[in-house]
Amino acid sequence: MENPVPASFDSLETPCVLIDLDRVEANLKRAQAEADRLGLKLRPHIKTHKLPRFAKRQVELGARGITVQKLGEAEVMADAGLDDIFLPYNILGASKLGRLKALNERVTLAVTADSPDTVAGYAAAFATGKPLTVLVECDTGLGRCGVVTPAQALALARHIVQSPGLRFGGLMTYPPAGGRDKAEAWLAEAKAMLAKGGIDCPVISSGGTPDLWHGHAGSVVTEYRPGTYIYNDRMQQDFGAASWDDCALTVLATVVSRPTANRAVLDAGSKTLSSDAPGLGGYGRIIGYEGAVLKSLSEEHGVVELAAPSDSPRIGETVRIIPNHACVVSNLFDAVHLVSGDRLVETLPVAARGKVQ
Amino acid sequence: MENPVPASFDSLETPCVLIDLDRVEANLKRAQAEADRLGLKLRPHIKTHKLPRFAKRQVELGARGITVQKLGEAEVMADAGLDDIFLPYNILGASKLGRLKALNERVTLAVTADSPDTVAGYAAAFATGKPLTVLVECDTGLGRCGVVTPAQALALARHIVQSPGLRFGGLMTYPPAGGRDKAEAWLAEAKAMLAKGGIDCPVISSGGTPDLWHGHAGSVVTEYRPGTYIYNDRMQQDFGAASWDDCALTVLATVVSRPTANRAVLDAGSKTLSSDAPGLGGYGRIIGYEGAVLKSLSEEHGVVELAAPSDSPRIGETVRIIPNHACVVSNLFDAVHLVSGDRLVETLPVAARGKVQ
Repeated sequence: MENPVPASFDSLETPCVLIDLDRVEANLKRAQAEADRLGLKLRPHIKTHKLPRFAKRQVELGARGITVQKLGEAEVMADAGLDDIFLPYNILGASKLGRLKALNERVTLAVTADSPDTVAGYAAAFATGKPLTVLVECDTGLGRCGVVTPAQALALARHIVQSPGLRFGGLMTYPPAGGRDKAEAWLAEAKAMLAKGGIDCPVISSGGTPDLWHGHAGSVVTEYRPGTYIYNDRMQQDFGAASWDDCALTVLATVVSRPTANRAVLDAGSKTLSSDAPGLGGYGRIIGYEGAVLKSLSEEHGVVELAAPSDSPRIGETVRIIPNHACVVSNLFDAVHLVSGDRLVETLPVAARGKVQ
Repeated sequence: MENPVPASFDSLETPCVLIDLDRVEANLKRAQAEADRLGLKLRPHIKTHKLPRFAKRQVELGARGITVQKLGEAEVMADAGLDDIFLPYNILGASKLGRLKALNERVTLAVTADSPDTVAGYAAAFATGKPLTVLVECDTGLGRCGVVTPAQALALARHIVQSPGLRFGGLMTYPPAGGRDKAEAWLAEAKAMLAKGGIDCPVISSGGTPDLWHGHAGSVVTEYRPGTYIYNDRMQQDFGAASWDDCALTVLATVVSRPTANRAVLDAGSKTLSSDAPGLGGYGRIIGYEGAVLKSLSEEHGVVELAAPSDSPRIGETVRIIPNHACVVSNLFDAVHLVSGDRLVETLPVAARGKVQ
């Protein structure tokens, strides 16, 4: 077996999440070095780990600041001392705009907009006090949020520039995996239109771990926001963005049943691993059992089909699983166990878990 | 629009979970009446709601006790005063067996086993003190845990009977949706074998909301463990076990972007709705927008394809979503909002959320 579970983990109740600190450190340093090589600012997305400690480490290693996806995540990070936060989201509604305004007084903050409606909300809320920095979200191929043409980006940027209380921060996109070249062309066109329109564009921000290693010198992109790279997972391995040895988050699970010679059942189901990315063929990679397929999940069971009839794994044995998608697994656990090789180091609450608002 | 969101919900930040108390009450009473009609004991599975208040209400209305899927859920419910708990799971390992033993001293408790290994663990832990009630888990078609033949059920029952400190509690199964008849035949055969072997079988427990309404008088099943029936969801509607009007859990989400005339983006993604049951065609039903398809989720975005180009829903508008699978949505939120029609009643912490161990 390639990676048997060390006896030192026997004290842990399963299912639980293990974070390999050495792999985290290596992943963070490698990405920072790549950003430095390309002259890019790194602004890691903390939605993956939701841990202030790792956010601080990312900044210590050279990141310009952090990215969050929710106001609640931003508040947790600000409380922990992170002082440069990018929230690439349309924030709407009086209650959230009030929270945003309070947060803006405390830290260096930027948000995004992709419509005049969103800009109007910001303008009303920030008519007084410290101005709010707003980037224009651009849809460069994903088909999610974002203005869909460079001309729309220019028009919305102009709207922001003309709104008292708002400061135009630049352009932001989240391209689909493999979409970095297409995004580059889109953003270059928008940048040229802004320049022609006399609008300064201080930041062009892109993101995504899948294309983290596909950057090139001379890009119009000035800032990159990878998230999953800190832990990696089966999706990133499939994208070619990470090797199995770069996967820092594993789920420790126990074999609770061996009903047949071909089937094992684990105590890790969809409330542990999530149902994300079933297209990968199974819901995780069981380290040391390479032919085994984690073929179906109920909420608290994972059904494994073994490659061949076998007595192994035995009932009571623990296995480590590399999940399909690390970011959603983090969000299912109140705490994670930090490990270094075979050594249990510490248990850490996932401070920004469930901060969905 | 069939069900516009009432203005009284405007104060809520989204995404959030709304639980319609009137629908909950109707769902609980209807299932209890059905169990009474068939002479079945009802033992609702609380994994769906994870709320002591609703567990107590289920018992008040006539349930024999509750079912939980995790030891941590059992402990939360015992702390809240629930005193008859069934944990249909193989509990393994010294740490969990210690917790199980402590719990057994406090409440009327039963667990399951599907192997001699699990029984051996129970026997060792319960050699002294109050005996533990153990049912044999039977695989009547699902292909998850459970002994796979009635003869194996008999053998394991005999093993339990012969173990000091353990009490044989009967048979337990969780059939697949539509599998109630096949389960009936399996269990009847096992029951006959137990009788022939001189082993008393006090309980035969089955479960599953999809087949809740497919029971018949004279079944060998004595107890039924539905879970999702309290809230229902898109899966249950698809199974034919519930109508849309029986769906008590909805996710309130805000339209944050309208990039095109055919596309709307919601602030509810996989960290709100989960990725469960994509085979239903989309990740939830948007009430009032029947032709719309919630076609893809990222972690904090839900992308909606509208039936036809439209200005509606507008940016900032809130919508209510019936999720594919209510049980996993409950587990993603620290709190839920109880409502009665258009009225906000109370916000309740999801006490057993994340009790994965």
